[in-house]
Amino acid sequence: MEGGFPKGHCILLSGAPGTGKTIFGMQFLYNGARNGEKGLYVAVNEEIDDILLQTKVMEWDMKKLIDLGKIKIICLEMKDFSIKNLMKEIKEGGYTMVVIDSLSAILAHPMALEDIDISFTLKDRLDRLAPSPIHEGVATRLLVEKIITSIRRLDCTSIIISELVESVGGMSRDTISEFLVDGVITLQYVMVGIESNRNLMIRKMRATAHSENIHPIEFKPGVGVNVLMP
Amino acid sequence: MEGGFPKGHCILLSGAPGTGKTIFGMQFLYNGARNGEKGLYVAVNEEIDDILLQTKVMEWDMKKLIDLGKIKIICLEMKDFSIKNLMKEIKEGGYTMVVIDSLSAILAHPMALEDIDISFTLKDRLDRLAPSPIHEGVATRLLVEKIITSIRRLDCTSIIISELVESVGGMSRDTISEFLVDGVITLQYVMVGIESNRNLMIRKMRATAHSENIHPIEFKPGVGVNVLMP
Amino acid sequence: MEGGFPKGHCILLSGAPGTGKTIFGMQFLYNGARNGEKGLYVAVNEEIDDILLQTKVMEWDMKKLIDLGKIKIICLEMKDFSIKNLMKEIKEGGYTMVVIDSLSAILAHPMALEDIDISFTLKDRLDRLAPSPIHEGVATRLLVEKIITSIRRLDCTSIIISELVESVGGMSRDTISEFLVDGVITLQYVMVGIESNRNLMIRKMRATAHSENIHPIEFKPGVGVNVLMP
Amino acid sequence: MEGGFPKGHCILLSGAPGTGKTIFGMQFLYNGARNGEKGLYVAVNEEIDDILLQTKVMEWDMKKLIDLGKIKIICLEMKDFSIKNLMKEIKEGGYTMVVIDSLSAILAHPMALEDIDISFTLKDRLDRLAPSPIHEGVATRLLVEKIITSIRRLDCTSIIISELVESVGGMSRDTISEFLVDGVITLQYVMVGIESNRNLMIRKMRATAHSENIHPIEFKPGVGVNVLMP
Amino acid sequence: MEGGFPKGHCILLSGAPGTGKTIFGMQFLYNGARNGEKGLYVAVNEEIDDILLQTKVMEWDMKKLIDLGKIKIICLEMKDFSIKNLMKEIKEGGYTMVVIDSLSAILAHPMALEDIDISFTLKDRLDRLAPSPIHEGVATRLLVEKIITSIRRLDCTSIIISELVESVGGMSRDTISEFLVDGVITLQYVMVGIESNRNLMIRKMRATAHSENIHPIEFKPGVGVNVLMP
Amino acid sequence: MEGGFPKGHCILLSGAPGTGKTIFGMQFLYNGARNGEKGLYVAVNEEIDDILLQTKVMEWDMKKLIDLGKIKIICLEMKDFSIKNLMKEIKEGGYTMVVIDSLSAILAHPMALEDIDISFTLKDRLDRLAPSPIHEGVATRLLVEKIITSIRRLDCTSIIISELVESVGGMSRDTISEFLVDGVITLQYVMVGIESNRNLMIRKMRATAHSENIHPIEFKPGVGVNVLMP
Repeated sequence: MEGGFPKGHCILLSGAPGTGKTIFGMQFLYNGARNGEKGLYVAVNEEIDDILLQTKVMEWDMKKLIDLGKIKIICLEMKDFSIKNLMKEIKEGGYTMVVIDSLSAILAHPMALEDIDISFTLKDRLDRLAPSPIHEGVATRLLVEKIITSIRRLDCTSIIISELVESVGGMSRDTISEFLVDGVITLQYVMVGIESNRNLMIRKMRATAHSENIHPIEFKPGVGVNVLMP
Repeated sequence: MEGGFPKGHCILLSGAPGTGKTIFGMQFLYNGARNGEKGLYVAVNEEIDDILLQTKVMEWDMKKLIDLGKIKIICLEMKDFSIKNLMKEIKEGGYTMVVIDSLSAILAHPMALEDIDISFTLKDRLDRLAPSPIHEGVATRLLVEKIITSIRRLDCTSIIISELVESVGGMSRDTISEFLVDGVITLQYVMVGIESNRNLMIRKMRATAHSENIHPIEFKPGVGVNVLMP
Repeated sequence: MEGGFPKGHCILLSGAPGTGKTIFGMQFLYNGARNGEKGLYVAVNEEIDDILLQTKVMEWDMKKLIDLGKIKIICLEMKDFSIKNLMKEIKEGGYTMVVIDSLSAILAHPMALEDIDISFTLKDRLDRLAPSPIHEGVATRLLVEKIITSIRRLDCTSIIISELVESVGGMSRDTISEFLVDGVITLQYVMVGIESNRNLMIRKMRATAHSENIHPIEFKPGVGVNVLMP
Repeated sequence: MEGGFPKGHCILLSGAPGTGKTIFGMQFLYNGARNGEKGLYVAVNEEIDDILLQTKVMEWDMKKLIDLGKIKIICLEMKDFSIKNLMKEIKEGGYTMVVIDSLSAILAHPMALEDIDISFTLKDRLDRLAPSPIHEGVATRLLVEKIITSIRRLDCTSIIISELVESVGGMSRDTISEFLVDGVITLQYVMVGIESNRNLMIRKMRATAHSENIHPIEFKPGVGVNVLMP
Repeated sequence: MEGGFPKGHCILLSGAPGTGKTIFGMQFLYNGARNGEKGLYVAVNEEIDDILLQTKVMEWDMKKLIDLGKIKIICLEMKDFSIKNLMKEIKEGGYTMVVIDSLSAILAHPMALEDIDISFTLKDRLDRLAPSPIHEGVATRLLVEKIITSIRRLDCTSIIISELVESVGGMSRDTISEFLVDGVITLQYVMVGIESNRNLMIRKMRATAHSENIHPIEFKPGVGVNVLMP
Repeated sequence: MEGGFPKGHCILLSGAPGTGKTIFGMQFLYNGARNGEKGLYVAVNEEIDDILLQTKVMEWDMKKLIDLGKIKIICLEMKDFSIKNLMKEIKEGGYTMVVIDSLSAILAHPMALEDIDISFTLKDRLDRLAPSPIHEGVATRLLVEKIITSIRRLDCTSIIISELVESVGGMSRDTISEFLVDGVITLQYVMVGIESNRNLMIRKMRATAHSENIHPIEFKPGVGVNVLMP
């Protein structure tokens, strides 16, 4: 991980509450910015100050990198959300690294569907079949495919964050995105007796040899999410 | 915990029945009031007397703090509920600490949705897509986001209480709020043989180092929820 | 438990089939009647004779207490059910102790909803939103809140009985009522090898110190449900 | 069990496939008939010959008892099913013992609902509320209550058979009937290593002291279901 | 099993993928044909060649038995499926042994419902109640009952094959058929460490003494599914 | 596996994210191409470059085989998807080996239903019954049957890839396809302490003797998915 992810990869970062998803995402951009990359952090329904507060504890000089234009944080409100506009912003801004926080927030908002040529592909043909509303599952899959396909066509490396609900199957809230991305990293708590520890697992990383073990992690100022050897 | 929560944080307090959610919430306001804070307790569908009865056992002098205007308890009936009005009351009252008891009660009442500019954001665009009613999950997420975003924009520290149903996944009844708040505390029973003990876990606390272990708790007059070291 | 429940408390008694819910409820009224209280047993869709048969085995002189007007049993048929009328009967009858057997039976009958000012609170506002029928979960929560709030406003101590289905989460069939009452008692079977024993647990008792352990119970003539120390 | 069930009791007999529900039911009538009772076996969607075949293995002289009018088997087809007619037949036939095989078959057929004064109780009031179809759960509960209440008002002892699906909660397919009857007996397989044994448990028997243990059973010609002491 | 099933019995054969359901079914017909029976194999949505390929490995001379008219394989396409026609074919062909492969495939096709006098039994009466579409569960139960009842009225011994999905309750995909047939046989994998073995269990066999244990099985040319003693 | 699959077989390859489904599929075509077969890789919603990137790590000379016309990769977009056209392409191209990646992606898109003569088979008859939309389960089963039946009628050996979601029952996302194919291979992670290993299991292989054990696998350049003996 120290060496970053393969260029152009789209990584799913799926984590339980409080496991450091935001810090991991910022760390990705922070390390990139110091190596000449240009990063965009896309927060959905969250404010810039709240995100900066979390990075402050890591003692990173985010302010400087933001002022230099090496990192930009934007906060989307779902009512204005559009996949097309987002992709346009990434492209025109020349960003080489992108974090989307979070896919779960986008998927819960069906209005995002409009971006897809639903009128052309689905609706006409469905009408002929039955006057049934689009199943929630279909809408979700269409959106996940659209978002991941769009971002992979851009010339950037990306992290897509998903919420991971305890004791539910799959590696993301939607159970679909983990099959479409190039890599999957999960952040979870493991209980050992009365102790609870944060852990990181690389569940998938296309075209790359990687550890498949559970790694304990800690938050370390100056570093961020620090992966400990078992 | 003794030192309170970071200023401006929005904390989710999620607990099983009888684990002391109300006492924990009042303890938060009581300690704050004695340190010059001004606190508001928002009870949904519950009466002031019932809440005061529970605090009486803790031997706190709530009456005095209430008379001094340092703590106020209001009881909302869902039929009059409005996120906008609630936020207005918090702001105009100058409250620096707020407890909402409970998010689960609010989420069960779809009329609260009206506060959201649903007509603008969702309905128009959905109509073009399919004549489908809003999925329950979407409505829930919209409300959770609206409530937590609104309260975090105010200048106060807050606890949002959620019901935690045994043996169901997630850290709240809705399984969404735990991802949006700054911190999550759960109160649960753990069975050891035929004994059952209340325990507290800090599951998440942004920008703060915290114990991740299970801590036994007891109710202690003069204190409230007393956290024991393991 | 010998000393009864705190005055004015509303207790949820949740049990598996055959664990003694009816006997427990009658024992509550029987002990109360002998201490000068006036008790009402509200049976839903069950007949008085069936209930008396169960108490007869306990060798209680119910007949005498009924003739003296100290205990009354009424059998509601759901088609005539009305929360308002029930509350009126409790108030006008001057009952200080009430048992409702069972909440589960009432919740299964949506017509009980009429008692709630649904036309005022919910329907108008929902119509503006979407032509969706009321979700079952919302209707259930509205009813549970209405019943428990109504009975707690009366000047009486009450037990509300719920059915507890094996291996399903929560402490009642509805998984909501346990959060709204002042106390929760569960009656369950525990298998040890090929033996199966009835047990009682106090899961919640507001403003009261109580055992949190599993207690074996037996049916004892003259007593009713007899709690054994572990 | 040797001594039969308490007079007038309505017993739920819930079993996995192949655990002997039909034999148990016939054994109940067979023993009764030899003690002067008059029994009716109500088979839903099954033929008389199939039922007789199973009893033949038990070496009971069913034919004689049937010819003497001491036992009658009727086979209902659901399209002609009516609770009212069934109750009339039991009453006019003077039956003192009844077996209904099975409740699960009846509950799967919504047309049985017609027997209930649904037009009076539910439909009018629901229309005012919302144009929602009756929830499946409500319809099930209404039917279970109607059937069990009706049969308990008759002057007979009865067994109602339910299908028990492996690894699903509750003591019957509907998870409601076990709360409404006077007694519950379950027949299940228990795996011990590679051996699988049939067992019987009395889960509930109102107004009666009874074993709560798991009892191995065997099929024994001349007896039927033979309960072995553990 | 060597001696075959009792004449006239309808057996449910429920198995996980790859456990030998087709071979077991063919073995049943093959052994019967050599004893003078006449057998029909009803494949739904599968081709004759695919079925013959599987039997070829067992080194049975199916071709000869087919040419002699002792075994016939027919492949139904669901769009032409009709219970009435199928029963007519069995009757007129004089078949004494029948295998239906599979019930799960038939149940997934609602058009099969037409065979049932749905217009007479259900629809008229439902219309009076509520404009609700037929619940999936009701349709399934109606079909299962119709198929099993029809085939049991014929003068033949039959095997009905069902798909058994791992880690889902019940003994068939529909969880209903196991209660209606005369016998149930399941074929499953059991993991022991890293080894996985096929096993057979007789879960139910009316009017017959049978082993209730788990039996390892193997595929043995010349025999088919070979049951090993534990 | 070294010797490939039986000619004409249709194999389901079901795997968790990151277990090597794509590499396994390409390895199948790569080995075939070197033995004179002609292979087609059908990717749904994925780009050719992404697939080639994964094979590059295996150090296979895909480029050469593609240029020679021995392997072809096509990328379908669901909006243009048609079972008929796909089958036509396989047939006219003279392909003897086909990989479809993935069935799960196709099943999520209801428009694929159009290929089926739904108007003839289902819709007319359903209209007479009830104005119900086609259940999701029925649509899924129809599609799975159509795809697998179509491909098995062609003169080729095929692998159909399915997504396997952790801790959900069945051997594919749809839980149906595993019953219709000739063979099933699953790729899963198994946790041993803090180590996680990829494993392969042959769950089903018609007309073939095969290991039923769990086999550890590794990715080996020049080979692809390398199966280790336990």
